[in-house]
Parts: sequence; structure tokens; C-alpha cells
Amino acid sequence: MREVYETVKANGKFFLATHISPDGDAIGSAVALGLALRSMGKDVTVYDRDGVPDLYRFLPGSEMVTDEVRRQDTSGAVLVLLDCNTLARAGLDEAGSFEKSVVIDHHQTESPFGDVKWVEPREAATGSMVYRLLVELGAEITTDIATNLYTAIAIDTGVFRYGNTSAEVLDTAAELVRAGAAPADITDRLYNSWSADRYRLFSLAQASLEMYGPVAISTVTLGMFDETGTDPEDTETFVNYPLVMESVRISALLKQKDDVLWKASLRSKEEIDISKVAVMFNGGGHRNAAGCSLEGSMPDVKQKLLNALKDIL
Amino acid sequence: MREVYETVKANGKFFLATHISPDGDAIGSAVALGLALRSMGKDVTVYDRDGVPDLYRFLPGSEMVTDEVRRQDTSGAVLVLLDCNTLARAGLDEAGSFEKSVVIDHHQTESPFGDVKWVEPREAATGSMVYRLLVELGAEITTDIATNLYTAIAIDTGVFRYGNTSAEVLDTAAELVRAGAAPADITDRLYNSWSADRYRLFSLAQASLEMYGPVAISTVTLGMFDETGTDPEDTETFVNYPLVMESVRISALLKQKDDVLWKASLRSKEEIDISKVAVMFNGGGHRNAAGCSLEGSMPDVKQKLLNALKDIL
Repeated sequence: MREVYETVKANGKFFLATHISPDGDAIGSAVALGLALRSMGKDVTVYDRDGVPDLYRFLPGSEMVTDEVRRQDTSGAVLVLLDCNTLARAGLDEAGSFEKSVVIDHHQTESPFGDVKWVEPREAATGSMVYRLLVELGAEITTDIATNLYTAIAIDTGVFRYGNTSAEVLDTAAELVRAGAAPADITDRLYNSWSADRYRLFSLAQASLEMYGPVAISTVTLGMFDETGTDPEDTETFVNYPLVMESVRISALLKQKDDVLWKASLRSKEEIDISKVAVMFNGGGHRNAAGCSLEGSMPDVKQKLLNALKDIL
Repeated sequence: MREVYETVKANGKFFLATHISPDGDAIGSAVALGLALRSMGKDVTVYDRDGVPDLYRFLPGSEMVTDEVRRQDTSGAVLVLLDCNTLARAGLDEAGSFEKSVVIDHHQTESPFGDVKWVEPREAATGSMVYRLLVELGAEITTDIATNLYTAIAIDTGVFRYGNTSAEVLDTAAELVRAGAAPADITDRLYNSWSADRYRLFSLAQASLEMYGPVAISTVTLGMFDETGTDPEDTETFVNYPLVMESVRISALLKQKDDVLWKASLRSKEEIDISKVAVMFNGGGHRNAAGCSLEGSMPDVKQKLLNALKDIL
């Protein structure tokens, strides 16, 4: 962390970038660092190629996120990649006009990119790393900053349910609450803001569930989207629900894109590396959460998926 | 707390009792205190009239809980009520043979019972109070004790999602993890141990959902229990799901007992006091969680309930 600290102290202009399809850890840690650097009088741009998803617009300061790369913002600035460690993952073409590049990330995947690299795979979230950096910098942890960092941690620990829930991340959460973060309000915003249409889609998806031994497959068709007036974004988290069954090791959600194209969200428990199956279909992801696309009729696609899953079970 | 501390120090025989229909805070805090007192060489009985629900049998030490009141266990013992503050709530008839009585509770409802009373409505869980007491007593927080107390706190804070999630309770959780509690394993046991049959019942209950403005009513009929081979215990937590909808203020789950009898589980958000409606039908509960029984055909029962709900919306 020391080198990141020195780089922040020594420079006045920053371009913070986080990954495409941002989650709460990406947006929360980028906005928190952006707010803190601005309060220190620095010139700061916070960039995400895909902007801020609706779900995270409640985050104070999230309106500072831009989806544009402007020459006047990058020129002479220090690039800081948050929650990712390659330019491609941040949706950036090249780092030519930047003064220097810094990586702050907790992912295990290695990359040679970055003049200054601070990568801690044992940290639960990039948000908890940014918290430590801000404390080191002596930045005031305002309520707004605390709300962003608490959200980052909540998303990446599944609100303290995943295996990365350490004593240290609970300590950090406690400090953020002391600084003004409101746990119940934040989790309400993140998890209890479904539309009634989305809930109807959820019901239909549950009713479609089929069990193949330890594999649960649910399906959302174009007809279901039509019937409920919803879109693919509304299926977010659906794939997690069947994992409440003790017997289920793998959950797959098939979302229909058109007559012959399906997008599969895949989840697995514990040691099962579901990303191996996603890679077989040119997709990708992490050990317990991955995704890919499949072509064919619904029965065909299910069969292809089940055949591939056999290899990892 | 001081008086409780003194009472523990000064006595050698204890009868710990917690409330009927025990939840994780009841069992977890009673077993944790039981384990600690035994490690201090005390003679300890841990009593719950209803025994340990299946869900909590994974708790180390929970096998010490008895559902029997034996004269040799109560005679000359100090009675400690945990997570409740009346004999009736603990399923005990009288306190005649006890040496003394102690209450350790975080509920707001007042009661005159108890020679020594330690009641802290601002504490998130009785489990967090027991943690403080054990630290004060200098008891070793073993992995087994930590697992019980972490479970107690997880249940009563909805795994750090409810409004009682304070910086202090997060501090305590962090200390319990340091002492050996495994957050992911514990929440997995508590929330991800559904049977496939239970999940099918869940699907049917979701499909039954009807919306009446801000009120969501779902129904589980005898036919659904039959079809899925499940029983009323399997409906636990179903009533919470519709609350993920932003527009829903009240969720009701009707469970059919026989041709004309229905049990209603009621949940409400924020300031809506759903216990008022439960009381109208001779039920009871807390502000945001209550229950009652209703008689009639399904349409009758829904109408009765909706009429009563009008009064509080």
C-alpha cells in the first residue's frame, strides 16, 4: 500500500477507472476514493465505461461517474484501476496519455499491467482496501464515503455470508457504521427494491425449475419477459435461489436472447469450479460464478449444458 | 450487568431457561452460557420446553438442552431466563424451588419478574449480551461458544440486515470470528439447508401470490403440503420474500390447517405495526412480525384479513 500512498500524495490529477458491467464493489470503491481525493483538493475523474447501474444510483457521489474518456481528463493524470487489473477489463484502449498507472485490486487473476500494483487476494473487497488507504492518508471518512465503502463490502461478501467474511472485514464494517453508514437502509436499497413485475418473473422462473441430481436449471423465456414486462436485467440474483437446497451443487439460469440464443448464468458451491464449463462455451468468470452463451432450442441447450457439467461433477 | 456477574461468581448451580418455540438467539445464548458456566466448574442445566429445533442441532453443545424440569436440577439452583422475561414465556409453572432468579434479555416488553434483571432493549441480541458477560467473567471464548453466539447474533440481525445492526454488534461478530466462529459455514447451515420438496412448496407459494395494493398475500393449502410431501415447518421464512418488492408494505402467508382453519404469518415494513391486526384475531407478536389464526373458506379469510389491514394502512 505504501507506494499507492506515496503516489497519491505526490500527484494532483487522477483518473479512476473500474471494470465494465460494474458491481457495488467497483462503483462503491471508485466513488469513495473519488470523494476522498477531491476533499484533498485533487483533480479527479471517475470513469466506468458502462456508467452506474440503476441499482447503485442511490450511492452519494455516484453522479460523478462518467462513461466518457476525455483527453483533458486523462492527460497528465495518474490512472488508478480499481477492482480490476487490465485496461481491457476497464474498457480502456490504451494508457498512452497517463502520467503513471496504479492498480488497486483484490482479484487473484494476475496481470503485468501497472507501474504501482497493490493486489491483495485475501481482502474481501476492493472497498476494504480503499478504506485502509484512506485511513493511512488521514482522509476524513464522511457519511457519504462510508456509505459507498459499506455497499462495496456488502456486495462482495453477500452481506457477510460468503467465505471471505473475515474478522477484519467485520471490523471495517463496524468502523464504517461509526462513520455514518446505515446497514439496514443500504441493504434495503440493494435487495428490497424489486418491482412487482420482477417478482412475477421470479415466480415464473421458480416454476420452471428442473432438477438433474445436484444440478438445478431454471429458464426464463422471451415469452416470460413479454408477459411480465421485464428485461434480462431483472433476472439478476435469480440464479442464486436454488442454492438454498442442500442437495444442489450447481445452479444454472438460462435466459433466452432470441429464437436460438441463450445466455447462461452459472453458480456452484464450494470447491466446484463452474468457470471451467463457462470456458468450454467461450464464456468466463470465477470459480463459483460464471456465465456463457449457448445456441439451440431449449432442450438442446439444456442437454449441451448437462453434458458439459458431467465433466466437473 | 454487574449484579449478574456477582450472582454467577457467588453461586455454583444454575438452571438456564429460554423461551418456548426457541429461535437461534434463544438456543445460541443459552448453550453458550451453559458451556461457559460448565467450564468454570458450575453445575448447569439448560432447559427449553420445546427442545432444540432441527435447524439448530448443528450448534455444538446443543445436545445439553433438556425439555424436562427435574426437581434435582431446579432445587437450590439459580434460575437464569435468557431472551425472555416471564416464567410463562419460558414454559415454566413456578419458580418456587429456585434459589434466586436472573433475567438476561434484550426485549422491550416489561415484566416484574426476576430478582436480578439485566434488560437492554438497545442490544441486537441476547447473544451479544452473553458475550459481554463472558468477557467480563474472564471465561475463555472457545470455538464452540463463539459458534453459538455468532448464530444468535446472525438470527436476530437477519445476518446484519435489520435496523439493529450497530457498530457494536459488528465488533462483537468480529471478535467471535477471531475466537473461531466460521461465518459462511454458519449461514450455510441456517439458510441453505432446504430440501428439494421444500423448494417446490416455495415455488407453489410464490405462484399463489396476490397483490392488493401494498399488501401481498400468499397461500399454502393442504393440497400443496400433500403434493410436495412437506409440512407447515417448511414454510418458515416464506412470508419474508414478497417484502423484496419496493411497493409491498405488508406480506401475509396463509397456511391451511384444516377445512376451515388457517394460520396467518404477518410481516410489515418500518413503522407499520402489524401486531395490531394479529391481536384483532387473538394472535400476537412484534411490530414487524406477528401471527394469528383465522376461520373460514380461503376467500372469506382473505377478505377478513384485508378488512382488518385497512385499519392500519
